[in-house]
Amino acid sequence: MNKKLIIEAKNVPPSRPRFEVLGVFNPAVVKFGQGYVMLARVAEAVVQDEPGQFLVPVLSETGGMEIVKLGKNDPAYDFSDPRLIKNHDHSYLTSISHLRVARSQDGEHFTFDEGGIIAPEGIYERYGIEDARITKIGMTFYITYTAVSDCGINVRLMSTTDFTDFTKRGNIFHSDNKDCVIFPKKIRGKYYALHRPSLSHFGKLDMWTAESPNLVDWGNHKIVPAARIEYAPSARIGAGAVPLLTPRGWLTVYHSADTFDRYHLAAMLLDKRDPNKVLMKSIRPLVEPTEPYEKEGFVNNVVFTCGLTQEKDTLSIYYGVCDQNVALCRMSLADVFANMAEV
Amino acid sequence: MNKKLIIEAKNVPPSRPRFEVLGVFNPAVVKFGQGYVMLARVAEAVVQDEPGQFLVPVLSETGGMEIVKLGKNDPAYDFSDPRLIKNHDHSYLTSISHLRVARSQDGEHFTFDEGGIIAPEGIYERYGIEDARITKIGMTFYITYTAVSDCGINVRLMSTTDFTDFTKRGNIFHSDNKDCVIFPKKIRGKYYALHRPSLSHFGKLDMWTAESPNLVDWGNHKIVPAARIEYAPSARIGAGAVPLLTPRGWLTVYHSADTFDRYHLAAMLLDKRDPNKVLMKSIRPLVEPTEPYEKEGFVNNVVFTCGLTQEKDTLSIYYGVCDQNVALCRMSLADVFANMAEV
Repeated sequence: MNKKLIIEAKNVPPSRPRFEVLGVFNPAVVKFGQGYVMLARVAEAVVQDEPGQFLVPVLSETGGMEIVKLGKNDPAYDFSDPRLIKNHDHSYLTSISHLRVARSQDGEHFTFDEGGIIAPEGIYERYGIEDARITKIGMTFYITYTAVSDCGINVRLMSTTDFTDFTKRGNIFHSDNKDCVIFPKKIRGKYYALHRPSLSHFGKLDMWTAESPNLVDWGNHKIVPAARIEYAPSARIGAGAVPLLTPRGWLTVYHSADTFDRYHLAAMLLDKRDPNKVLMKSIRPLVEPTEPYEKEGFVNNVVFTCGLTQEKDTLSIYYGVCDQNVALCRMSLADVFANMAEV
Repeated sequence: MNKKLIIEAKNVPPSRPRFEVLGVFNPAVVKFGQGYVMLARVAEAVVQDEPGQFLVPVLSETGGMEIVKLGKNDPAYDFSDPRLIKNHDHSYLTSISHLRVARSQDGEHFTFDEGGIIAPEGIYERYGIEDARITKIGMTFYITYTAVSDCGINVRLMSTTDFTDFTKRGNIFHSDNKDCVIFPKKIRGKYYALHRPSLSHFGKLDMWTAESPNLVDWGNHKIVPAARIEYAPSARIGAGAVPLLTPRGWLTVYHSADTFDRYHLAAMLLDKRDPNKVLMKSIRPLVEPTEPYEKEGFVNNVVFTCGLTQEKDTLSIYYGVCDQNVALCRMSLADVFANMAEV
């Protein structure tokens, strides 16, 4: 295994004055033309220059950027989480994310497009857009992403053919949901996705499958309980990279986090003709925080993938580290399978 | 306005030995043949005959009924809610619900079918099935219902042409969601539904619309913020009866509950060609707990509709009272509109 840090947030400029970049992370990567394209999540916060106030960025109703001021001593708000400001009635994110386009010839050295910003827009994206996954179907790239707002956490879809013009296609999964990846081929006449609903009373944060005739309307939601990992404590799991069709089935790299928010990546193999059926699963973590850049950052011990590419027998897994930077891990398919056992 | 209690749970026999009926409530009612059909929710609990134990009914993995025993003094469980036993990892309902078929000639006196039980089945229905709504499209009745299990709270669909044989069609909205009603006609080429997602971090418990090409796959989820009521505090709202097409638009009777779980019913008028657009809304409660049977019962102050019928200018609103019995309220359409103002 071969890990390296390939993008550092400190080298990426903010999108507007008064903002600073907290993280460039959780990138989707696909092959495009002769090279590679990345959609990275860029989380920005307002520069905190008003003593006693916490400045929170949100889209205004008219589409501009609004800065909400919360008194740091206001007992109605809980500022203890670096990502989230909790209130019984109206919580906020501390930062607002957009997606940014980067390109590479070698899949390792990426350059951000001048002006290549996919900005949050409209009422479902008021707190930002996050964690894209890119699925190529025909000549079109379908991009699922998480939108956060005071309407909840929705999964939305956009599409592009050139990574310059993007068409947003609305909410495909209602709140609360995230970590949605679409399979790149129809299976028995239907499109399939993995997704991760949130729950309020019963159940665990598990992966589910859904089916669609057209990529925008989804149904037949089914839980994938076998995706839960057994070799370590797991509070939640969620799909990561778009599944890769191998001769043995759909290879899927996903994340698991324990109750201390320590993440690792695992792999599972899904049946070629039934993506709800898990055939094999990692028997130990595939990627876990071992390097300093994986262990310490804006949020410690986070490794979170939104995309991988394949060159012959080698996988390149792109992943966000510590909600701050981007790392790349290369390993052989044989090594991935050597760490899996039948379910 | 003309209210009366029409079904009392104490007169309805349980479905099996060792069980008692806690409530017969939240009924869907439609015209069928020369009369009316009702699908009522019947909540049953285990007769509590083991001192020190709380006996909880759940479907077993093999489909039989299993009785889970929880120590009443076990500090891991919170028994304070009569409906729900809370645990940080594994909560339960105190009862398990099924749906039961009743028929009537006059829409007021209902007789339950011998053996007319739609039982919970499979992993998504392990804690029961609840709160049916019936939409007639062509000659088929489509029934949305809430399924509760340790997979969460899902909206599922079944269909029937005779209310004797029912075909279950899977999860149409993923967990957590409830209070789903399907509109009886396509609008601009699409089926529409109202639904109520639950939320974990951001937002309020609001009504949403979704679209579908085929009644099983749903997308383009949009919030209906204007459905929130303004004349009283409201912690959550949810769709109630199937919308009724009037010359002025889709008339929709729905519920609102405050933070003390005191419910009332309200009405809104949705645009004929855009069900996401609210044209008019009640300016005071349409039905609120005023009668003893609406104010005191298994859960006090609950009025909750899942269906209404229309005879000329008169609406018959069927509603569960106190999660225990069924009441009927008759009022003229003119009276409903007299209580509405433009949004």
